Amino acid sequence: MSSDEKRILTGDRPTGKLHLGHYVGSLQNRIDLQDEYDTFIIIADVQALTTNFDNPSKIRKDVKQVALDYLAAGIDPDKATIFVQSLVPEIAELTIFYSMLVTMNQLERNPTIKAEADQYDYKDMTYGFIGYPVSQAADITFCRANLVPVGEDQLPHIEQTRKIVRKFNNLYGEVFPVPEPKISDFPRLMGLDGKAKMSKSLNNAIFLADSEEEVKSKVMTAVTDPGRIRATDPGNPDICTVFHYHDAFNTEEVDEVETNCRQGTIGCVDCKGKLAKKINKFLDPMRERREKYLDKPELIREILLSGTEKAKSEGEETMKKVREVMKIDYFKGKSI
Amino acid sequence: MSSDEKRILTGDRPTGKLHLGHYVGSLQNRIDLQDEYDTFIIIADVQALTTNFDNPSKIRKDVKQVALDYLAAGIDPDKATIFVQSLVPEIAELTIFYSMLVTMNQLERNPTIKAEADQYDYKDMTYGFIGYPVSQAADITFCRANLVPVGEDQLPHIEQTRKIVRKFNNLYGEVFPVPEPKISDFPRLMGLDGKAKMSKSLNNAIFLADSEEEVKSKVMTAVTDPGRIRATDPGNPDICTVFHYHDAFNTEEVDEVETNCRQGTIGCVDCKGKLAKKINKFLDPMRERREKYLDKPELIREILLSGTEKAKSEGEETMKKVREVMKIDYFKGKSI
Ligand code: SF4
Ligand code: SF4
Repeated sequence: MSSDEKRILTGDRPTGKLHLGHYVGSLQNRIDLQDEYDTFIIIADVQALTTNFDNPSKIRKDVKQVALDYLAAGIDPDKATIFVQSLVPEIAELTIFYSMLVTMNQLERNPTIKAEADQYDYKDMTYGFIGYPVSQAADITFCRANLVPVGEDQLPHIEQTRKIVRKFNNLYGEVFPVPEPKISDFPRLMGLDGKAKMSKSLNNAIFLADSEEEVKSKVMTAVTDPGRIRATDPGNPDICTVFHYHDAFNTEEVDEVETNCRQGTIGCVDCKGKLAKKINKFLDPMRERREKYLDKPELIREILLSGTEKAKSEGEETMKKVREVMKIDYFKGKSI
Repeated sequence: MSSDEKRILTGDRPTGKLHLGHYVGSLQNRIDLQDEYDTFIIIADVQALTTNFDNPSKIRKDVKQVALDYLAAGIDPDKATIFVQSLVPEIAELTIFYSMLVTMNQLERNPTIKAEADQYDYKDMTYGFIGYPVSQAADITFCRANLVPVGEDQLPHIEQTRKIVRKFNNLYGEVFPVPEPKISDFPRLMGLDGKAKMSKSLNNAIFLADSEEEVKSKVMTAVTDPGRIRATDPGNPDICTVFHYHDAFNTEEVDEVETNCRQGTIGCVDCKGKLAKKINKFLDPMRERREKYLDKPELIREILLSGTEKAKSEGEETMKKVREVMKIDYFKGKSI
């Protein structure tokens, strides 16, 4: 099978604006992949409900936001299929069938579920929360995807999906390819505070939607080598967030920055100015595309509708096969 | 609200032929209710999968069987809506939304789940099995039913449904009536062996589909007063299965049978002959209706298709409201 026949399933829970960390960690990768693979991008609003079931208005705003961020970042709707999970009922149907193929023990042992349960302080997890790997298996397989780009931490989920698919195929008949993880371990982008990964909730992120001014003032707050008092002090770029970003977004000048910093021939303010300029230059084409879509809000609507339509028709094809092998296609023949 | 505006949801897992115990325990009740209420009858094939996921061909046969039994028993498709669960994806969609509103603790504490888990010897329950009260809540509410006829043992499930509905309505907005249980505790029909309830798996059942001859020979095997050796011995009807059936199906003669038995003026063989005749008379109109449907298999198909169509359209109406109050009806307006 040549790679252009292979289908990729990827996507996000709509839980806020996308930032540079998302870009480096997955968006860039998807933009590359869309040329090579039949790419399906799920806006997983139902999954977002597992942790936001009491705040659905937020999800509504975020669905639009994430779609806009995708398009601005360079996801091409003519190449990739962007769709909304809650509008593909076949995913819910598959989830129910898969739920008979997974034991509670398997779910309770899933290390990622365990870790996330701790993170959200769920002493009493909901049925939907503990089962989200089952729902994720349905997300991946409803369109019979072959490949799922993931980070190492998501491997247990893919393993769960593979188990479900193998069990389904064995029990009922071959419907699904057993999806392969496509591991892409991009370096995590540090937050502006230099302490953790870039994250909206930690308030240390530069968003793809930030204006030139916002980028400038955020970069100015970035944590640098704390030992450097004067512009002429030799600095240590290894412990400087700003340098970390030069490394990611300013490959042309990164060596020069390192030398100047170590020799004390550049001030941190200037160094930050260079970086802000570079990041703004990087974001400029995204801003242009964003403007285009903001001018024509019906365009996003059309893209999501037609993507969802396409996803739904893949889902219908899958469910037709599923009902056939499960022998519950009761009304196919002349009599039930 | 007058009773004719109220909607009832009832039904069965398709797990085999229906027998006299089903008739006495629920079918008779449904046949009465269909005149008074808007009755929806679910053939719960997806629920049947929770314990038969590795044997779906059996379910296929049983869907047809249970539909035929309903129609033969006197469920009138012009009054009641008979439909197939797996063909109403809205039920799956609701199940997923409800799964965020139920905690694992709630499910694990459900006494009926506990008991059934023991019965089936599930040391390692599937995710779908432990969650079937969630799926049942979706079965009941997808058509916004007000009433659910149940036995006492099913009350924990209805309580779970009521909890989910109240939580949903509070969180998002009033979509569903909080369904009321309609407790109907009919006496359980003893099996032919006199030992337990009538049940297919215990091989002590008279099926609605049994022929005249089958009924006769089954009744002949029924356990009577074991102390009675000769036809002239005084008998004790209180410990006789045959008398139990006279009581249920032969109200006209039951007093006479009791007297004759106690006085030793009727032999058990004669007594059984009377009963077999009576049961056959009771089953005769069902046999006639069954013949009609067996002659026209496309009729069952049409009834199930149109019932399922009607159920689906109720489900669509419900999901429209659900998406609206959950604010995930993204494409309702001009822009997302
Ligand atoms: S000069 Fe640049 S790299 Fe060096 S410490 Fe300052 S901001 Fe960081
Ligand atoms: S006469 Fe009838 S009621 Fe009495 S023991 Fe025999 S079968 Fe039972």
